[in-house]
Amino acid sequence: MSNPPHLTFDPDKPGTSKGHLVVPKGADCEALSLPVFSLNKGDGPRLLITGGCHGNELEGPLVAQRLIAWLPEAQICGRIIIVPVLNPPAVQAFSRNTPIDGLNLNRVFPGRAEGSLTERIADAVSRLLLPMADTVFDLHSFGPIWDFPPSTTTHPIADPALMIKTIRMAEAFKLPMTLVWDHPDTPGMFDISAHNQGKVFVCVELGGGIIGDEALAIYDAGVRNALISLGVVEGKAEYPTFRRRRSGQTLHTRRPADELKSPLPGIFEPRCSMLGEVKQGDLIGILHPMDSSSANSSDIRSPGPSIVCGVRSGGYVEVGEWLALLARPLNR
Amino acid sequence: MSNPPHLTFDPDKPGTSKGHLVVPKGADCEALSLPVFSLNKGDGPRLLITGGCHGNELEGPLVAQRLIAWLPEAQICGRIIIVPVLNPPAVQAFSRNTPIDGLNLNRVFPGRAEGSLTERIADAVSRLLLPMADTVFDLHSFGPIWDFPPSTTTHPIADPALMIKTIRMAEAFKLPMTLVWDHPDTPGMFDISAHNQGKVFVCVELGGGIIGDEALAIYDAGVRNALISLGVVEGKAEYPTFRRRRSGQTLHTRRPADELKSPLPGIFEPRCSMLGEVKQGDLIGILHPMDSSSANSSDIRSPGPSIVCGVRSGGYVEVGEWLALLARPLNR
Repeated sequence: MSNPPHLTFDPDKPGTSKGHLVVPKGADCEALSLPVFSLNKGDGPRLLITGGCHGNELEGPLVAQRLIAWLPEAQICGRIIIVPVLNPPAVQAFSRNTPIDGLNLNRVFPGRAEGSLTERIADAVSRLLLPMADTVFDLHSFGPIWDFPPSTTTHPIADPALMIKTIRMAEAFKLPMTLVWDHPDTPGMFDISAHNQGKVFVCVELGGGIIGDEALAIYDAGVRNALISLGVVEGKAEYPTFRRRRSGQTLHTRRPADELKSPLPGIFEPRCSMLGEVKQGDLIGILHPMDSSSANSSDIRSPGPSIVCGVRSGGYVEVGEWLALLARPLNR
Repeated sequence: MSNPPHLTFDPDKPGTSKGHLVVPKGADCEALSLPVFSLNKGDGPRLLITGGCHGNELEGPLVAQRLIAWLPEAQICGRIIIVPVLNPPAVQAFSRNTPIDGLNLNRVFPGRAEGSLTERIADAVSRLLLPMADTVFDLHSFGPIWDFPPSTTTHPIADPALMIKTIRMAEAFKLPMTLVWDHPDTPGMFDISAHNQGKVFVCVELGGGIIGDEALAIYDAGVRNALISLGVVEGKAEYPTFRRRRSGQTLHTRRPADELKSPLPGIFEPRCSMLGEVKQGDLIGILHPMDSSSANSSDIRSPGPSIVCGVRSGGYVEVGEWLALLARPLNR
């Protein structure tokens, strides 16, 4: 058996330290070294911030790099461990999944020490980094094929006390949407592993996966707001401006009723506004079949009063693909 | 030999007619029927409008569909033939190239009657549709990985009279940018074929390839402006609002000096504004290596005074990938 995963430096050392998390080699590839930074100002919150779980979501790694630049001056207490890129081979391939084994890192937690590369990364993170933190911010992007507001998300958590703490932490980012997402595909997710260890885990979903100035500025502001609320930096938390509004709302989406899917193949043209309210029968979008000069377009309408929390940005869809995700205010 | 390509209807019939352009079967697949519409109001300009050349550029097909809905009422003269989707298998695969033979339709013109599917589509379009028009609007999208203004483009044309007519037609869309593009890879392009037949050909490049409301509205306005300038519909042409500005400029980009390429692999973070002026040494973006905790980021700077006509939206880039395209006002 190869060496177990390890850190090349002591993250308990005061001040800023850097080194690598070494993921051991396996049958499929050599050992991998993930750059890791520890910003240690003593007692206080113990935070882990990760980016680059999916290789085609690159706002997270850049926001993490910016934190490494400005936090050492600003931080007043606590320890923040930052891993800008959890999955370097996926980032280098600009691909959601790891090219070497085809696996989605966010579906293999807590990982396997003797598994393929993606499972070994998850195992190293679960065993070495997760125990060092009370709170985790995992920086994702929602991706280019959806119009989705800058948001923090959590899945429903069985433990009510942890659920309340997690929602409060998610709301502290002051992003346009805080979403409790009853997601159909949670086994193996990083947050489920973290919740099982009693951690507060917030997934930040922001930007198109390809980097724009506005998205990065909102991402920066959201993470700064969360750090202010934890007390590790000083300042005043404020809602960032998004599409000329400065506000946030906390929503809940339930399955399967809130998942609008395509009844036929065609080009989807969205016709609703993200975070807009819709009544029963309101137009969500139009499906254009395109395969015959006599085919008619179909209207896609809301099944009931809802808030649109995300809509496909338009594109060719097959039967059963998601067109929109609806939600309503969280009933606390 | 199979039947030659043919139309299933008579496009010379007055009023609105619809049918199909039949692309003959070949060794690789059965015959293909492309929906075609003819809007015929007698004497006047003879126009061909095409969309869906690349299957992941879907604004064009929707704008074409909208034209079919509003033009029959508004058109006062001339004949407009509309093909919303030139390459249906590519649209169904949401892929730039045709999945059946892997070819880019916009690199195989004028096509081959006995070639693979993509070549047979080009041959049918070149032989049947192109001779019916004096002017062609080919509706593309620039795609999601670039920040690129709504624009009309043309390559340099050897015939000075056709070049002047083409630039005037391109400017008539009144989009934020009209670009004369000295492109490195023009053999087999649709416009080159059309220029060789003496046609005015304007390529419209707009939107991210995934459909948003703002992009569609600007696209609609641009095509309407061009139709007004041709005299086939009545109305007043106006610059559409784009990022709060209503204006347009005509630029010229030359190779290789105006193509900024990546000197190393990493995550590219754009730091300049599309259509913004830059001086020599101004920051275009930052490259973040990400593969080591000690690697430094590199600034990418402008080699000279220029206007930024497009910039990578950010993402992982390899050595030699384009990061930005610069230009300067066209010297007439």
